Amino acid sequence: MIGRLNHVAIAVPDLEAACAQYRDALGAAVGAPQAEPGHGVTVVFIALPNTKIELLHPLGPDSPIAGFLQKNPAGGIHHVCYEVEDILAARDRLVSAGARVLGSGEPKTGAHGKPVLFLHPKDFNGCLVELEEV
Amino acid sequence: MIGRLNHVAIAVPDLEAACAQYRDALGAAVGAPQAEPGHGVTVVFIALPNTKIELLHPLGPDSPIAGFLQKNPAGGIHHVCYEVEDILAARDRLVSAGARVLGSGEPKTGAHGKPVLFLHPKDFNGCLVELEEV
Repeated sequence: MIGRLNHVAIAVPDLEAACAQYRDALGAAVGAPQAEPGHGVTVVFIALPNTKIELLHPLGPDSPIAGFLQKNPAGGIHHVCYEVEDILAARDRLVSAGARVLGSGEPKTGAHGKPVLFLHPKDFNGCLVELEEV
Repeated sequence: MIGRLNHVAIAVPDLEAACAQYRDALGAAVGAPQAEPGHGVTVVFIALPNTKIELLHPLGPDSPIAGFLQKNPAGGIHHVCYEVEDILAARDRLVSAGARVLGSGEPKTGAHGKPVLFLHPKDFNGCLVELEEV
């Protein structure tokens, strides 16, 4: 069911420093910061030959990653995103298998403008999983 | 400098349950467990179309992931692995940029039989980074 790994998201306390590090020390192709006020984050995509790293930094007072950075002040790997062809079919299969979908259970529009869902990390080995329909 | 994302490693407390979940609920291609006593882990590779997920479970008394699972009993994303063409050149560039290499600073042979190094997570936004020469 799951397809490509769309991205790995890393929450960072200092977006400028993280961008400089990936660009200068790791020599990667770092994109421009994109404010996503609807999602409470500023994102920077780092293009690797086969997938992307998504740097996440809180934006606004109700950022969904503020709590993560309080618990992990240095930052940390926040989630992985797997691509699926049909997000509603994927959701129904996962719910049947006992997994919990975060929020209302209905897909939202993600940072790429595609429908996304998040699965409860307690159901996936402590790993927050995003599904994105492509 | 960094190339492909070789894998994302997820430490899991129950390897059999994690394999069943990725195979049955997420519908992924889950490999057979491989004991790696030299690394203190049992690994299972999950093949995605563009990269791999590496499930890690402690093996033996001195497993390098035992402490991680003590802090994160449900499991969690443990590290990301980026491919590099020349691991010594990569190391020297990173050390010049102020990053710390874990252990002796010399590459070891990783689970794929290739030279690997780990970078200090405090230097990379709380994210443990493995470099693998390919």
